[in-house]
Amino acid sequence: MKPLIAATPEEFREKRGIDARVLHEVLEVDLKARRVLVRRLDDSTEFREAFDCLVIATGAVPIVPNVPGADAGGIYNLSSLETGLTVRKAVDEEKPETAVIVGGGYIGLEMAEALVMRGLKVSLVERADQVMGTLDPDMGELVSRALIKIGVSLYRGESLTGFETDSGKVRAVVTDKRTIPADIVIMGLGVRPNSALAEKAGVPLGVRGSIKVNERMQTAVEAVWAAGDCVESFHHVSRRPVNIALGTHANKQGRVAGINIGGGYATFPGVVGTAASKICALEVARTGLQEREIKELGLEYVAGKIESSTRAWYYPNAGRITVKILAEKGCGRLLGGQIVGIEGAAKRIDVIAASLHAGFTVQDMINLDLSYAPPFSPVWDPVLIAARKALEMI
Amino acid sequence: MKPLIAATPEEFREKRGIDARVLHEVLEVDLKARRVLVRRLDDSTEFREAFDCLVIATGAVPIVPNVPGADAGGIYNLSSLETGLTVRKAVDEEKPETAVIVGGGYIGLEMAEALVMRGLKVSLVERADQVMGTLDPDMGELVSRALIKIGVSLYRGESLTGFETDSGKVRAVVTDKRTIPADIVIMGLGVRPNSALAEKAGVPLGVRGSIKVNERMQTAVEAVWAAGDCVESFHHVSRRPVNIALGTHANKQGRVAGINIGGGYATFPGVVGTAASKICALEVARTGLQEREIKELGLEYVAGKIESSTRAWYYPNAGRITVKILAEKGCGRLLGGQIVGIEGAAKRIDVIAASLHAGFTVQDMINLDLSYAPPFSPVWDPVLIAARKALEMI
Repeated sequence: MKPLIAATPEEFREKRGIDARVLHEVLEVDLKARRVLVRRLDDSTEFREAFDCLVIATGAVPIVPNVPGADAGGIYNLSSLETGLTVRKAVDEEKPETAVIVGGGYIGLEMAEALVMRGLKVSLVERADQVMGTLDPDMGELVSRALIKIGVSLYRGESLTGFETDSGKVRAVVTDKRTIPADIVIMGLGVRPNSALAEKAGVPLGVRGSIKVNERMQTAVEAVWAAGDCVESFHHVSRRPVNIALGTHANKQGRVAGINIGGGYATFPGVVGTAASKICALEVARTGLQEREIKELGLEYVAGKIESSTRAWYYPNAGRITVKILAEKGCGRLLGGQIVGIEGAAKRIDVIAASLHAGFTVQDMINLDLSYAPPFSPVWDPVLIAARKALEMI
Repeated sequence: MKPLIAATPEEFREKRGIDARVLHEVLEVDLKARRVLVRRLDDSTEFREAFDCLVIATGAVPIVPNVPGADAGGIYNLSSLETGLTVRKAVDEEKPETAVIVGGGYIGLEMAEALVMRGLKVSLVERADQVMGTLDPDMGELVSRALIKIGVSLYRGESLTGFETDSGKVRAVVTDKRTIPADIVIMGLGVRPNSALAEKAGVPLGVRGSIKVNERMQTAVEAVWAAGDCVESFHHVSRRPVNIALGTHANKQGRVAGINIGGGYATFPGVVGTAASKICALEVARTGLQEREIKELGLEYVAGKIESSTRAWYYPNAGRITVKILAEKGCGRLLGGQIVGIEGAAKRIDVIAASLHAGFTVQDMINLDLSYAPPFSPVWDPVLIAARKALEMI
């Protein structure tokens, strides 16, 4: 049995200097015959290959809007290292002066920062009223302010309606409220599971069109496994299936699938929704459920939000950190946490994530024996201060 | 009822610019009569004061060795902000050229760094074979190397036998192996609970002479409470009483005592042995039990030790982090963790501490949904890689 990768071709190319060019593309999976139809990418010849066991790790694909001019030159979707290199080359060679980012998620924000640092005039268009939609609005506002501070023109609550083009090249981004000149456009509208191949083959899908798997990464079809951005995961806090495209989950799931396929035993029990990002000097992190998600589940909650210091107040380079802890009303069960602050802020989300895995209440949290020394934290870690604040409100 | 503080006088003075001079010292507690004998520090007059409720928060006192010359000038015990200011003044005014630190705990190491930075020739004497005795020897070795690298002359496995003095001023530190010239000596032999007042009054003591308290910070004597470095705590991992002198515990315990005395309800369930320190560019952290402590409990364990990177390997300022995870043989229960690394390393101990509170196994740990982004971590957080390593050895 030869190993075959059912992935988008560019995914593995040039990563870490390893020649991982994908030479084959899987066009079709025949589950009954246990065969795949494969196309060689160098000469486009096709052949069939039998399998004993199939792993679908097709990842995610960028969401592309169906608006006029979307296929013009100068509009880039970021989905792989390769597309990142393409954008860098375009900036180096074509020397664009204005850039518009469409989408205020972490890819959009990180690109905004990168292009500001390259000297471009950067605008960002976001359909929602806030950037970083995985944060609550009050925490997202802190990120918006940081973007504006570095010179990004921020257009929130505006929808993309199309692009103005000139000779097949983008000239401006058009929203429902204005037209913004653009030499280069970065699309950051998020991704969706790349499950077309699985669906076509008859592998059952779940939430958001992701592939349904059990904790061992088996699909509903015998001998067919799946892992990564294309699969469904269990969310420990909402207790619902979710599809979250993150390298951490993909990597863990790949390990679990591999162990099981190799005859071992491993499970991937689920996620708690942790994510982190850095925008300029600002570190941003979140885990668990945000207010909107809690409301959707019909739960009631309290929010403990505090401002504190990343280090002891008198220690060099101490700076502001805002921590928000969400806990269930009555029982005090921890539901989520969000952090925005300077260097040293984001990684504190991990202790909230571990607390979610543990099923802690905010009462449990305030007793946590977290580390303290002036270079690292105030005596009460900001996470614990926020938990105390939430506890007072239960 | 007037509030009275039974604490060493220097403890609260000049902290944070607040005039918190302690004006009274409690000389004696009469538990039957519910009265304390108090001395005014300004005029040495004494008086008795009745109490309804007494809080003993006498902290800890530095361990002072009983060796010849120990009372000479130029030998400093560090136990409060005030003593720190005294040392700084001595360095500024007397311009010592050579310093000897006695004791390789975190106070000793932080002082070694501070004095090297002030341009002194610094030697450090430690009775044990390693500095940072709260780490396992292999992890302590990483700290020793960092000290040697910044120019500290390190004498491990040597015991202090006395001091050479000249006109009442220290001239050299004498060990069982050599004599080391010293213009200034810093004693960092640790602290012991300051429980003399409580003991004399008949309040029952526990481990290491610390005051026995229940989870609400009540001593065994009615209406007498205690909190801070002078009390006993429950260790969640060893399930034994311990006395650990740290501001984090003292602060939490003070809050709990205060709430209970005020008619509320709060508990301090215990500690897991977390501590962190920074020596030069090196961050050091530990939690739970170290190998020696595990062996003393008669338990068997595996140690997963790995080297990884504080950030994604390609990200600016990424650097080495060593993580060691100790887990119980067979069941895989997490027993402890130790971290040594550059900036960004130490605070990762908190996720291990939270995992200890949760009673996680290393199997539980490897499923933790910890944050990832290139500025913060490799895709697998180093803590999880170490847990995986331990899991393989169970």
